[in-house]
Amino acid sequence: MSLCLFITVCRASSPQEEEDSAMQNIVTEKRAEESHRQDSADLLIFILLLTLTILTIWLFKHRRFRFLHETGLAMIYGLIVGVILRYAVHVPRDVGTASMGCFVNISPATLLVNISGKFYEYTLKGEISANLVNDVQDNEMLRKVTFDPEVFFNILLPPIIFHAGYSLKRVQHFFRNMGSILAYAFVGTVISCFVIGLLMYGCVMLMKQFSQLGGDFFFTDCLFYGAIVSATDPVTVLAIFHELQVDADMYALLFGESVLNDAVAVVLSSSIVAYQPQGDNSHTFEVMALLKSFGMFLGVFSGSFSLGVATGVVTALISFFTKLRDFQLLETALFFLMSWSTFLLAEACGFTGVVAVLFCGITQAHYTFNNLSPESQDRTKQLFELLNFLAENFIFSYMGLTLFTFQNHIFNPMFIVGAFLAVFVGRAANIYPLSFLLNLGRRYKIRSNFQHMMMFAGLRGAMTFALSIRDTATFARQMMFSTNLLVVFFTVWVCGGGTTQMLSCQRIRYGMGLADGSERRSTKQESAWLFRIWYNFDHNYLKPILTHSGPPLTTTLPPCCGPVARLLTSPQAIEVDGDINLSYGDITVSTDAMGAHTNSGRSFSGTATSDDLDRELAYGDHELVMRGTRLVLPMDDSEPPFSDSIRNLRM
Amino acid sequence: MSLCLFITVCRASSPQEEEDSAMQNIVTEKRAEESHRQDSADLLIFILLLTLTILTIWLFKHRRFRFLHETGLAMIYGLIVGVILRYAVHVPRDVGTASMGCFVNISPATLLVNISGKFYEYTLKGEISANLVNDVQDNEMLRKVTFDPEVFFNILLPPIIFHAGYSLKRVQHFFRNMGSILAYAFVGTVISCFVIGLLMYGCVMLMKQFSQLGGDFFFTDCLFYGAIVSATDPVTVLAIFHELQVDADMYALLFGESVLNDAVAVVLSSSIVAYQPQGDNSHTFEVMALLKSFGMFLGVFSGSFSLGVATGVVTALISFFTKLRDFQLLETALFFLMSWSTFLLAEACGFTGVVAVLFCGITQAHYTFNNLSPESQDRTKQLFELLNFLAENFIFSYMGLTLFTFQNHIFNPMFIVGAFLAVFVGRAANIYPLSFLLNLGRRYKIRSNFQHMMMFAGLRGAMTFALSIRDTATFARQMMFSTNLLVVFFTVWVCGGGTTQMLSCQRIRYGMGLADGSERRSTKQESAWLFRIWYNFDHNYLKPILTHSGPPLTTTLPPCCGPVARLLTSPQAIEVDGDINLSYGDITVSTDAMGAHTNSGRSFSGTATSDDLDRELAYGDHELVMRGTRLVLPMDDSEPPFSDSIRNLRM
Repeated sequence: MSLCLFITVCRASSPQEEEDSAMQNIVTEKRAEESHRQDSADLLIFILLLTLTILTIWLFKHRRFRFLHETGLAMIYGLIVGVILRYAVHVPRDVGTASMGCFVNISPATLLVNISGKFYEYTLKGEISANLVNDVQDNEMLRKVTFDPEVFFNILLPPIIFHAGYSLKRVQHFFRNMGSILAYAFVGTVISCFVIGLLMYGCVMLMKQFSQLGGDFFFTDCLFYGAIVSATDPVTVLAIFHELQVDADMYALLFGESVLNDAVAVVLSSSIVAYQPQGDNSHTFEVMALLKSFGMFLGVFSGSFSLGVATGVVTALISFFTKLRDFQLLETALFFLMSWSTFLLAEACGFTGVVAVLFCGITQAHYTFNNLSPESQDRTKQLFELLNFLAENFIFSYMGLTLFTFQNHIFNPMFIVGAFLAVFVGRAANIYPLSFLLNLGRRYKIRSNFQHMMMFAGLRGAMTFALSIRDTATFARQMMFSTNLLVVFFTVWVCGGGTTQMLSCQRIRYGMGLADGSERRSTKQESAWLFRIWYNFDHNYLKPILTHSGPPLTTTLPPCCGPVARLLTSPQAIEVDGDINLSYGDITVSTDAMGAHTNSGRSFSGTATSDDLDRELAYGDHELVMRGTRLVLPMDDSEPPFSDSIRNLRM
Repeated sequence: MSLCLFITVCRASSPQEEEDSAMQNIVTEKRAEESHRQDSADLLIFILLLTLTILTIWLFKHRRFRFLHETGLAMIYGLIVGVILRYAVHVPRDVGTASMGCFVNISPATLLVNISGKFYEYTLKGEISANLVNDVQDNEMLRKVTFDPEVFFNILLPPIIFHAGYSLKRVQHFFRNMGSILAYAFVGTVISCFVIGLLMYGCVMLMKQFSQLGGDFFFTDCLFYGAIVSATDPVTVLAIFHELQVDADMYALLFGESVLNDAVAVVLSSSIVAYQPQGDNSHTFEVMALLKSFGMFLGVFSGSFSLGVATGVVTALISFFTKLRDFQLLETALFFLMSWSTFLLAEACGFTGVVAVLFCGITQAHYTFNNLSPESQDRTKQLFELLNFLAENFIFSYMGLTLFTFQNHIFNPMFIVGAFLAVFVGRAANIYPLSFLLNLGRRYKIRSNFQHMMMFAGLRGAMTFALSIRDTATFARQMMFSTNLLVVFFTVWVCGGGTTQMLSCQRIRYGMGLADGSERRSTKQESAWLFRIWYNFDHNYLKPILTHSGPPLTTTLPPCCGPVARLLTSPQAIEVDGDINLSYGDITVSTDAMGAHTNSGRSFSGTATSDDLDRELAYGDHELVMRGTRLVLPMDDSEPPFSDSIRNLRM
């Protein structure tokens, strides 16, 4: 439905006024130019902020200073610039105001204004709260440095989330802990959402009693708050974890949980917004509406999931069947475009692009990555690493800035205290009961110091911010936004900064490498049967069909399917049939590390036995160390193992 | 000057209408969502177009099919999609229209509309020509796939131009031909601009005689047309040139000319727009206005130039004085941000960002590149290569699309024929007389078959398109845009496609490597004295101050400056003092290739003798072949020389 509104704004026009209109044109052009220059200058502020952050990060890394993470630093710089913009810069008022009265009952998306015979097109930017209308000119400058909130969702978040998915490579620890990760991500996030929602509802009721509440705050708002504040950030603590080389299981649990719960929180919050009971009061409880919301959650989540996986598989197939690997630039470009199109496709279909992108990233890492040429593997990793780094630091410095430049802040002390308590309790209600239940089924228990650490590591970051700033139209949303900013600041600075202390305080060993550790466990009993079935299916059928690695289909399919198998098996896989241990294994790069061990008995039978799995899990440890250094961590002191040799080659 | 206009659009409001307003909110939200989905779908069209282009390029490369370049291909796909969008897709009319009359005499940048008590903010999108107002709803869909023309200038062109500058590395052939390149770029472009302008003015006069002209077309418009159509594209022909390994001097001349003349054309066109005589008739000749325009040309060009060089130098200094090279991600991010900030800074200062970015790229390649770690050198090159590839193909496919979706096309057969003739004559008036004059001073002449080839290789591409689409408000501009589209199509398809034939027809040897050739010339006589002075200064002072390569300052400065020299010389340079031939030379990567030859007599004297220069020019040939394969050419069959070794390392 497209709506156009014509507003005719005219003056009595006379022939000699043509010259005047030429002057007007010049004025309009001048103004457009002025506005463009202003925009460039505003963007420049952020670029310089980021540059400053990078240089300071370098200094911190150089001096091995670990109390403040880069994101915390970006926030501090943002805060400083925000203060300057707010209090030190004054823009002279020079505003012409004209008021007109017209009748219309809708707010159209496009406005055509006829001014003295010339037509100008205006586009809807958004609603402005009534009390701000008089300040509009006043705060022109502050509003200038305010981005459209959708920018975060549509431009900055996707690379961050994709990178998270693309880093969540088939490191065996994730698979070993799959069940627990899913439990934390799905059940945990829902628990956290409802606990926080209920607590906040209590808090709001209390505030009403003391008449501390300046506007409407419904139960659905409380639930919405619970959903958006349940998204934990995978970045800060994990970077520190990795630098300190903490236990690999711990790492897998935390990383898996925080990546997936972002996806859950996004879909959950949009389902809560969609909860709209029929009838007069839109804030009563109604079973049908609840079911509809629940159905929507399932639909959107599974839709986004399938879409993401589907594009990943298509990319894998394209790179499998074409010889694109001879042209690395084309390969990288294709990879980038396909990953981006996942996002757009999901958004165009009404699913959640961010979620689709996450699963696309995981699929790309699991299948497509193996088909890429070694150079493209590096290129894509580095590209998304860079995008992730820039987007993340941008978001965090914008967060700092927005504390001073956002104009509708509502800081309510009671609500803030309530929120901090609720966030704390919500995280506890997520981790401890779930860990207890999971420990019942796990042979290798999640120990209590691990649980405390997971509790402590529940930082709130980019996702919470992006979800909060997306809609700040109502009183409730504005209060949520202001409170969430404080929650993010606190968790990033205090929890993020205190990770090292917390780790040593909890006596979690670190610094001895992820692979080391006294408890090398046989995974035979720990891996769930469901996972084993999937693993075998993936290993024997999906990998050979979608990638150049894995055993040739001819050996894994029953003999009756021979022709089909030969059709689907890549010539490469058939060629190396006799020398299978070279192309076998998940990642071509690491084959030499694994090749020696996979030589023994499995190659020609082709089917993965549970011994294979164990062996892979065991050596996977080593792989994690090697790859993790280059993939997971945004930046790192140690150089990747082969960059030295490259440098030597070039010297 | 910021202007706000309040338009109050109200209905009689009653208390029971609150619910109605809630419904309105929902409707507004739905509409915003709908619009976002539509936007995603539109962007998706382009992504799929690019994906298709990539796959077809691969097929062409795979089959070694050379008659159509990738950009030509992108245009064809764009055309096809344009036809489909125009004729096959019909969007049902569903438009609510309201007309209002108000009085105001300016078009404000921001519009506040008060609709039933709610305030909505609208931003100025642009002027719409009066005859299109009734079609606005009709062509909603077509307008949806139309980008803001400023997108090309502010987002897509900068990476292309930066990449061109970054590829124009210190390959010695460019320096050898510096004088000729500058002559072609500056004098040639101005000649071409005025020749085309005068011819077009004649054509327009003729059209007026036959009353074929449907609107105003002034002499300044003609000159403007001359300026925008004088920008030749460095891409298409050069890619083919490189693949065929044409003579290196030819390559340097063409590449240097086409890169620089883009910059000249941009500044020239904006100076012509700025030509505004005082008084009643704004299209008469006036000396003062002309001088002002000329001054503006000089000011903007030199301003942009200095800004670009300045940021490049700052980046070089930062990477020189910090040990950022230990953290490749930070290094790459800093490099990217600094290069981007050049653009923003120039725009914010009122200079031309595109020009600044070009010179920033050249400076980065000449100085900063040497300070980067080998990994970052690869990363930055690959990053800008990718951005360039995507932006370029996007622009060319958009060009194809726009032939059918742009709504204000004015195809005037007489003007088009005139334009093709003028473009041809303008190019000839640029190349032949200038070559004749240059040959008087050159020992190594530009032969006539080279001249014909340069004439033939004057394709018009992305820059001409971006300059044409930037402003399509008036009749003259619309006609220029439509005509330029045809010029671009013709030159890219016919001239681009016919390059191979033309080369063999002109008997220009190719396929034997850029370095080979019977005429290895001593450059002692050819290099101009000005260039020699600059070369020595750069080599002895700038390089050592700004980069880790070059001789240490302690050897090049007079003994009295000892302390200063020691302060400014990097410890690295001092360390390798005894083993100078390792860090000496332009690019660290290629030192081993050069080291053996630079060993003889110059190292410890430190000053560059002309023998050095000769030697570098000679061995520079080899360098060009090696580096050009990876840098200049967007994609390439052959692998860079050391990627094999990397792969071996990993296997």
